[in-house]
Amino acid sequence: MSKQQEDYVKQITKQNEDFSQWYTDVIRKADLVDYAPVKGFMVIKPYGYALWENMQRELDKMLKASGHKNAYFPLFIPEYLLQKEAEHVEGFAPEVAWVTIGGTEELTERIAVRPTSEAIVCSMYSKWIKSYRDLPILYNQWCNVVRWEKSTRPFLRTSEFLWQEGHTAHATEEEAQEETLKILDIYRDFAENVLAIPMLTGEKSEKEKFAGAKMTYSMEAMMLDGKALQAGTSHNLGQHFAKVFDIQYLDRDGELKYVWTTSWGVSTRLIGGIIMVHGDDRGLVLPPRVAPCQVVIVPIAQHKEGVLEKAGEIYENLSERFRMELDDRDTYSVGWKFNEWELKGVPLRLEIGPRDIQNNQVVAVRRDTGEKTVIEMEGLDKKIGALLEEIQKGIFQKALEFRDKNIRTANNMEEFVSIIESQKGFIKAMWCEDAECETKIKEKTGATTRCIPFEQDKTGDRCVVCNRPAERVAYFAKAY
Amino acid sequence: MSKQQEDYVKQITKQNEDFSQWYTDVIRKADLVDYAPVKGFMVIKPYGYALWENMQRELDKMLKASGHKNAYFPLFIPEYLLQKEAEHVEGFAPEVAWVTIGGTEELTERIAVRPTSEAIVCSMYSKWIKSYRDLPILYNQWCNVVRWEKSTRPFLRTSEFLWQEGHTAHATEEEAQEETLKILDIYRDFAENVLAIPMLTGEKSEKEKFAGAKMTYSMEAMMLDGKALQAGTSHNLGQHFAKVFDIQYLDRDGELKYVWTTSWGVSTRLIGGIIMVHGDDRGLVLPPRVAPCQVVIVPIAQHKEGVLEKAGEIYENLSERFRMELDDRDTYSVGWKFNEWELKGVPLRLEIGPRDIQNNQVVAVRRDTGEKTVIEMEGLDKKIGALLEEIQKGIFQKALEFRDKNIRTANNMEEFVSIIESQKGFIKAMWCEDAECETKIKEKTGATTRCIPFEQDKTGDRCVVCNRPAERVAYFAKAY
Repeated sequence: MSKQQEDYVKQITKQNEDFSQWYTDVIRKADLVDYAPVKGFMVIKPYGYALWENMQRELDKMLKASGHKNAYFPLFIPEYLLQKEAEHVEGFAPEVAWVTIGGTEELTERIAVRPTSEAIVCSMYSKWIKSYRDLPILYNQWCNVVRWEKSTRPFLRTSEFLWQEGHTAHATEEEAQEETLKILDIYRDFAENVLAIPMLTGEKSEKEKFAGAKMTYSMEAMMLDGKALQAGTSHNLGQHFAKVFDIQYLDRDGELKYVWTTSWGVSTRLIGGIIMVHGDDRGLVLPPRVAPCQVVIVPIAQHKEGVLEKAGEIYENLSERFRMELDDRDTYSVGWKFNEWELKGVPLRLEIGPRDIQNNQVVAVRRDTGEKTVIEMEGLDKKIGALLEEIQKGIFQKALEFRDKNIRTANNMEEFVSIIESQKGFIKAMWCEDAECETKIKEKTGATTRCIPFEQDKTGDRCVVCNRPAERVAYFAKAY
Repeated sequence: MSKQQEDYVKQITKQNEDFSQWYTDVIRKADLVDYAPVKGFMVIKPYGYALWENMQRELDKMLKASGHKNAYFPLFIPEYLLQKEAEHVEGFAPEVAWVTIGGTEELTERIAVRPTSEAIVCSMYSKWIKSYRDLPILYNQWCNVVRWEKSTRPFLRTSEFLWQEGHTAHATEEEAQEETLKILDIYRDFAENVLAIPMLTGEKSEKEKFAGAKMTYSMEAMMLDGKALQAGTSHNLGQHFAKVFDIQYLDRDGELKYVWTTSWGVSTRLIGGIIMVHGDDRGLVLPPRVAPCQVVIVPIAQHKEGVLEKAGEIYENLSERFRMELDDRDTYSVGWKFNEWELKGVPLRLEIGPRDIQNNQVVAVRRDTGEKTVIEMEGLDKKIGALLEEIQKGIFQKALEFRDKNIRTANNMEEFVSIIESQKGFIKAMWCEDAECETKIKEKTGATTRCIPFEQDKTGDRCVVCNRPAERVAYFAKAY
């Protein structure tokens, strides 16, 4: 490695020195994001936004394939609507941005900039739903929401973020529950197979559930520093919102009944997850299925005859099938280019120089493993397709192994504290589901309940805190 | 037509009875939109949103193909930024919604909910642009904006709307001007070839230009009531914003220079244009290229053996290539279905009944002309593709003829007033470009200057108002 190359990489703090600084270095140097003039807000730059567009496209396809339709509800929610559901307003009031002036007039009632849209959606559903024939309603929207946060980090927690929020209404409790779980499974499928992030799925505790929900389910991922990221939630809202917003339908039996509703969302927060699950000391490592650029071609000795022509030819052939860049800048060294594309997490680099041309081959270098493969020109596109798939699977497998290695069992409080103090990762422990025990753990260790997993692989029958009988095992971790 | 069918259609006010009521009837009955709880805001329902998604996808492709990249800038703009450009703030201040409370704290400085993003984008550009190597910057964003409007109509003028806004920065005045015109041409191409709406393009008058712009160009369409819709604008901002936001770059010659910026946008307003250019007394007529459903299959005598099977088979075969619906509801009559899909503007209806199956054919009915064609099953997809293209061209041609027929020349004020009073449409007239004459026309007739067209087909050499020498011809009309 040349001096120049070393310097370039050195500018990123090492993960094991200061993970938080590493994160900040990477998002800035990879040009994903910048800080906006209002504290807590971010600008998503083209490279970050292209990543989001690819994520959106894939998830949108999955949501549409499962019968959901996109719509758009207004940004502004009058205060009286937000106040209808008591828990909901209590949960969101501290983080609402309020509009009090419209043009030149003081408003008689202040208006919330949506922190989430249950209130406005339900107010419309009560207009639209009349009969069982109108059910189910399965709507989703892609939009921005505002939550006035005290402490923020780009992608992970910002005062404005982009997301999708689904809102559905059903005739029966069973259907609503089925929908809630179906969506969680779509999210898990999306996270694992598109973003290559392994997920633990399960129930949220009473304390951690969504404000106004009967039950919240979530998927939780482990970051490389061992902390948890709540990556997506799906809420069964029971009839809480239906009753306060008066959403009733005339059933087949001639009776008026309240509907059952759900809501669910994932956001640009997932970008933070991608960074902190796959990244390394050289920068981003992006999953091929969503990488803005899947393959970059770097010509070697590009001033030599025929090199740029050949590189251009390969680019033309492959760019029909893959998202490509051809880096033919003559103001940067090859080493600099390698580093820059590695920093940007491009899954595959193709090198083509005079000798490769002679041998009718290219050299492919994987971002995730650094592995070099010489590939014959014949059938190049198929081989590249296969390599990208290998990378997609490889980074998932690596993340899965890391996560599983860093889940540890605690049988009592002493063990719990000792693990938290000496190790990174999640703790699996039996829990009596009493909020008091949850609070004790948080106060003592900073860890919170992440979820009570669907897959109940019990580690005992007594609560890790109070030693009373416990029915279920839960995951605990410090979280973003 | 059965009694039931007649009733269904009768519920739409006729265009020539009350165009404005016809518009309201159509958008509500076709289920495009609903009114939101805050006055002036709308909910875009799935059918309307699917139309917008198709429009977005097509325009986004064109903008990316011409080198533009998507990004996302924050919704909130601090007041001091908005105030930097004097004309800009003056133009937008009366319609800004202001956030004054964040969570539980009163803000020390109020924050604007973006009415447009020049201020926030330019504040970032001044950070990002250092050298001529950073130029041009060609960014676009798809987002929502808020303008506190007094009088609103769904799609045409609402307090919140969805749009794309492009913001570019260039090294030279020439490049900025080239970009401004290139974008206007992309807009025209999109409007004419995707939405099938003929456009007049040209310069806006000094009075009608964007607040803060050096020059605004627009495209203007004629609605079926003869009124104009400003359908898209592209602004050359000169160095107005560069100077107040201090966007300077180090040029090749070692000198610090201000950049030249542009901005441009089209919005959900275009949906209003589609409705009012193509619609008729039976409802919407949607251009095939953006119609959420391009082809609907309505089985005839669907209880008879083999009909639903055959209809399903055709649906399966065609839905790979076209956006399709198969209307196999057994609770509605065939006549009702015909009316409903006509109301929704689906370009092509396929009827398939027992006799058609026997004859190995389907009956295709065009929404735009009502024309019926019997099509053999063999090569059905190609024939349908061709029919949809014919419809796309046909509705453009029809709109073009209507528009051209309704542009009239006025040589003096008397003629001007008489045309306005007796006819609908645009007036073409020589104008001295003095704002006073513009105001006089507006006061006397309600018409405004729409644009000074690029294609100068002069009708004289004296101003239609003051009779002083006039260099250029302009279009005048009442406008939305």
